[in-house]
Amino acid sequence: MNTLKIGIAGLGTVGSGVVKLLEKNKDTISKRCGRNIEIVAVSARNKDKDRGINLSKIQWVDNSIDIANLDLDIVVELIGGMEGTPKKLCETALRNGKSVVTANKALIAKHGMALSEIAMQNNTYIAFEAAVAGGIPILKAIREGLAGNSISCVVGILNGTCNYILTTMQKSGREFADVLKEAQDLGYAEADPEFDIEGIDAAHKLAILTSLSFGSKLSLENIYIDGITGISPLDIKYAGELGYNIKLVGIARKVGDKIEQRVHPVLVAKNSFLANVDGAFNAVSIEGDAIGNLLLEGPGAGEMATASAVVADIIDIARGNKSHPFNVAYGEMKDVSFIDIEDVESSYYLRIPVVDKAGVLKEISKTFAHQGISIGNVIQKQTKDNNSVDVILTTHITREIDMKKALGELETLSVVIGKPHIIRVL
Amino acid sequence: MNTLKIGIAGLGTVGSGVVKLLEKNKDTISKRCGRNIEIVAVSARNKDKDRGINLSKIQWVDNSIDIANLDLDIVVELIGGMEGTPKKLCETALRNGKSVVTANKALIAKHGMALSEIAMQNNTYIAFEAAVAGGIPILKAIREGLAGNSISCVVGILNGTCNYILTTMQKSGREFADVLKEAQDLGYAEADPEFDIEGIDAAHKLAILTSLSFGSKLSLENIYIDGITGISPLDIKYAGELGYNIKLVGIARKVGDKIEQRVHPVLVAKNSFLANVDGAFNAVSIEGDAIGNLLLEGPGAGEMATASAVVADIIDIARGNKSHPFNVAYGEMKDVSFIDIEDVESSYYLRIPVVDKAGVLKEISKTFAHQGISIGNVIQKQTKDNNSVDVILTTHITREIDMKKALGELETLSVVIGKPHIIRVL
Repeated sequence: MNTLKIGIAGLGTVGSGVVKLLEKNKDTISKRCGRNIEIVAVSARNKDKDRGINLSKIQWVDNSIDIANLDLDIVVELIGGMEGTPKKLCETALRNGKSVVTANKALIAKHGMALSEIAMQNNTYIAFEAAVAGGIPILKAIREGLAGNSISCVVGILNGTCNYILTTMQKSGREFADVLKEAQDLGYAEADPEFDIEGIDAAHKLAILTSLSFGSKLSLENIYIDGITGISPLDIKYAGELGYNIKLVGIARKVGDKIEQRVHPVLVAKNSFLANVDGAFNAVSIEGDAIGNLLLEGPGAGEMATASAVVADIIDIARGNKSHPFNVAYGEMKDVSFIDIEDVESSYYLRIPVVDKAGVLKEISKTFAHQGISIGNVIQKQTKDNNSVDVILTTHITREIDMKKALGELETLSVVIGKPHIIRVL
Repeated sequence: MNTLKIGIAGLGTVGSGVVKLLEKNKDTISKRCGRNIEIVAVSARNKDKDRGINLSKIQWVDNSIDIANLDLDIVVELIGGMEGTPKKLCETALRNGKSVVTANKALIAKHGMALSEIAMQNNTYIAFEAAVAGGIPILKAIREGLAGNSISCVVGILNGTCNYILTTMQKSGREFADVLKEAQDLGYAEADPEFDIEGIDAAHKLAILTSLSFGSKLSLENIYIDGITGISPLDIKYAGELGYNIKLVGIARKVGDKIEQRVHPVLVAKNSFLANVDGAFNAVSIEGDAIGNLLLEGPGAGEMATASAVVADIIDIARGNKSHPFNVAYGEMKDVSFIDIEDVESSYYLRIPVVDKAGVLKEISKTFAHQGISIGNVIQKQTKDNNSVDVILTTHITREIDMKKALGELETLSVVIGKPHIIRVL
């Protein structure tokens, strides 16, 4: 077959990694594809920056949009960002009949359906394996490896920055702000960390996973999102004593005809797969009616790991493999109803600061009983203040709305002297 | 697109599972493929057996070879066995221009290259995801998900029966023979368990993994194989005290230009991924130059989990996805040299029965020092016999040939009163 010609827009960490990887494994990749892959054009903000890659034989394009008009088979969009140039570049490339490969989770989570429609209309293809869970071939696993399954649940550790911070807090007992600062210094967290620590990045990835898993339309706005800024070393410690680690997860679940989408911290049992995913790693657990449970773990970010996913998409297109980007054809993607967070059922961990006197536990128990919530484990811990204790408890499965009512009632009790800390249990 | 017509030969556990799964998820699968999949013909030994599936609308074929001559797109071979009918069926189907999907690891490990050649000559395709690690889409992950990587190492728990037996021995402290008997009663082990417990089944799977990972010709005969029949509860106990679990693994590794292929029990650190794969589960760890490390875990056998992999292959073909079965074209598969087990480098665990008197440890240490082998941990344990003790030790990395020499020397020592038990450390 003839050479597959690609153009790359964006030569940051991932873009440089893609150039390096295609060069390093050129011979192997050619054999696997049965054809050569050639980088014909690149575009980035700064032409003169030293990226450790040789661009002398590649056409430099000043305005990245122009890449979409060159004689190419694939446009690789690695600029990043939800709107503006990357969006216009992908649209133009698809309209010009070129395939698009991108690592841009924000763009796909927001505009993936519109892009998918343009791709279909122009009989071309858009691929975005690198957008979710970095190097882990999770979209391929769901879309192809588990194509025979009805999927019921996907749970993932989808943000390496948060997982790094939580793992470090757990191992060192240090405060969130302190560990975040260190993560920023080490390059594990952005200067502006909001997207990561508030759970927004994980939500972008979850929206894509949900759509592929259930054949539903992308719906970023129907994700309940809570980040990790409220997690304290004390909760990590007490969770540990109860046999749990704390992780930020994305959960997409089918409940009847509806779908539940949420990103928030959870307590996960220490002996479970997700509890042991440490540092900047990502992991996903998928439940399907035939497979049962499939677990994947790997690097969620990084130059070469993300490049691995981008290059896999390029090779797929070179080989002629084209599944529907969202698993079913654009027109077949379903409108589904989403479950309101208040109707979600879960167990809970609570840490309740109370006065240190007899009968307090009884009053608290009564409050939960009012809402029909049964309590699992209870421990009581002395605080630094001699007149107060922390009551730490876990509940059995209950609806979020009932837990909210119980919390409201708790806060009216005179024995409760501070805001209860609450974390869901997986 | 028109309906994809398939014929299934073999209606045992997996075959029945495939029929059930294609029926259960018919609508979803059609949407994902953009076409219907129809089972047109089936064949099995016993027409009248109740398999819990409705075959009334499907053509029954008495002689399974005849399936290869029907008007079909795919022949699904689920008879099993290395020679005879399944081989002839696959050959005939491919020669007749039909695609073949099979779960038959023995057949592929032995005849995969010849079948691949016939497929290429007839411009058709052979797929065998279900042959390795049951439901885990491991071949797809290597062939497609990691297609941009040079792979350096694959380590897997590839036999669920052995993993079930070892996990049960570990949890219960019971003897191998006793647990094997129970596994047979529960249906986790065959009446004739040799293929599983001697490591042969794992070797078939490893041969396939090696070939896909390194683009090398299949070479079953160049696998060093050792099963789990020699593992005692005592070794599991002592390994545990040293911080390890014992697992049967398959290892395929690139060392310079050569490849190492081996199946044997190993000690794996308790906090590692593979150490925590319990029961009948399978798991694979892959090292690639771009991805770093990718881990997959899932059910290694079972009706629906294996059917999941078979149906994934069928859907891939329905969608028109066709990578090279062994990752590179038949003619590009390399002749490689394999490393003799004597040249393999590894750490070792040893349990050496010795007389209980002063100076014994010194004599043993001297023996290892002779061969340039350094010792890591040492523990000494009283045995039931009051006059003897077990010396348990781990070595640093050494060549197998040097360890053999040390063993020979050990056995000549008068203080050594029984055959040393030896297990490699991962």
